[in-house]
Amino acid sequence: MRVKLTIEYDGRGLVGWQRQDNGPSVQAALEDAVMKLEPEHRAVYGAGRTDAGVHARAMVAHVDITRDMAAEKLAPALNYHLRPRPISVLHSEEVPGDFHARFSATKRHYRYQIINRRGPLALEAGLAWLVPHPLDAEAMHDAAQRLVGRHDFTTFRHAHCQAKDPVKTLDYLRVGRLGERILVETGARSFLHHQVRSMVGCLALVGQGRWSADDLKAAHDAADRSRLGLNAPPDGLYFTGVDYPDTLAAK
Amino acid sequence: MRVKLTIEYDGRGLVGWQRQDNGPSVQAALEDAVMKLEPEHRAVYGAGRTDAGVHARAMVAHVDITRDMAAEKLAPALNYHLRPRPISVLHSEEVPGDFHARFSATKRHYRYQIINRRGPLALEAGLAWLVPHPLDAEAMHDAAQRLVGRHDFTTFRHAHCQAKDPVKTLDYLRVGRLGERILVETGARSFLHHQVRSMVGCLALVGQGRWSADDLKAAHDAADRSRLGLNAPPDGLYFTGVDYPDTLAAK
Repeated sequence: MRVKLTIEYDGRGLVGWQRQDNGPSVQAALEDAVMKLEPEHRAVYGAGRTDAGVHARAMVAHVDITRDMAAEKLAPALNYHLRPRPISVLHSEEVPGDFHARFSATKRHYRYQIINRRGPLALEAGLAWLVPHPLDAEAMHDAAQRLVGRHDFTTFRHAHCQAKDPVKTLDYLRVGRLGERILVETGARSFLHHQVRSMVGCLALVGQGRWSADDLKAAHDAADRSRLGLNAPPDGLYFTGVDYPDTLAAK
Repeated sequence: MRVKLTIEYDGRGLVGWQRQDNGPSVQAALEDAVMKLEPEHRAVYGAGRTDAGVHARAMVAHVDITRDMAAEKLAPALNYHLRPRPISVLHSEEVPGDFHARFSATKRHYRYQIINRRGPLALEAGLAWLVPHPLDAEAMHDAAQRLVGRHDFTTFRHAHCQAKDPVKTLDYLRVGRLGERILVETGARSFLHHQVRSMVGCLALVGQGRWSADDLKAAHDAADRSRLGLNAPPDGLYFTGVDYPDTLAAK
């Protein structure tokens, strides 16, 4: 039985989604929890690989289970073994055998949270990017529209990015202000490594008036990593959801 | 010079606002920070005394400073000495000498955050109350209106409450749902000890269908602590602001 998992995690203290030797990862924690229920190791496949310090409201993963149990009982069973780690399985549901969390995904969604004020973060330390200089969210939103569509995103790509092709289609990139909070929301079939953080960093330069919308466009058009203005820290980044075809919906 | 401070803090790991012998408090942290700037001890007076584990988005306090400095420079100076504690002074401004954070307050505002889902809290552990049973936020809101106005709130009062009079005027008590999040917002000139948490606990019983609005009203009318249905945990409670008369506004 293939089971789709929806997972929330707090990235502080985690090395990221992917299993690594240098510290606790979400994937390793989930696979270890599955091991308590299954006779042999079962790989857990995620829709995206978030970096160290990046959070998830709704990461999606899948795992194959041989144990005779209702799929929806897997979430509480895994949560029992995940405690006290800051990782929570919100839902578990049976999906068709050809569902793949990563390869079936048609769109991934992220949100980036900026807190725009001078006072240090007490409640959101590690959960947002503190930008003390006043930001013009409308200017950020307007400039962001220049990045929407199908383009070469090399400027916003990490040196270690493993994607074969830097051309991606950005479906939306919206910036809005709620009091001192600025939220950047974006979605695409897939993103390059560091793409969201790099776009947000450059949008913050626009918000401060250090870059114009034309400067952003010129850096983007150059398709040159050395033109990257600023990479935002992982703290404010949240993986918020994945879309899949209806034909692969939960049974 | 009297300075008004607006403070954010994360109540996890703190014994509350008030200086106590058994652990770190917000008041002691602020007074210790002021001591680094002033030749002698200066008391810091808060608008409210939050309990252990309760948070603040905008607690207000005042302190008298003799040092020759611009009032607005006090916030960054205190933050320098507060690090790495989860306490942040968001603003500092000069106020008239008869301003008193506690005694001049005309209204205090609180917000209570419930997360209504089955999965454990990863991102909001300690920052919200997890209620796994489905809650009817509309029923909670409707029942809450029975508590608004001038009443004896003894049912919702802690045994150790020091207030002389259990009669208080509740200005508003609103319940709304945003996805899995239920927010309860309330304001009054003053509250009894545990009053917000106790009202929220009983509203959660209404939301689960275990109490009707009439049950809530009957428990309230009884003015009897033994009729309290449930006291919500401190985790979800945030002190969100204070109102003062215009005549005491910042200079």
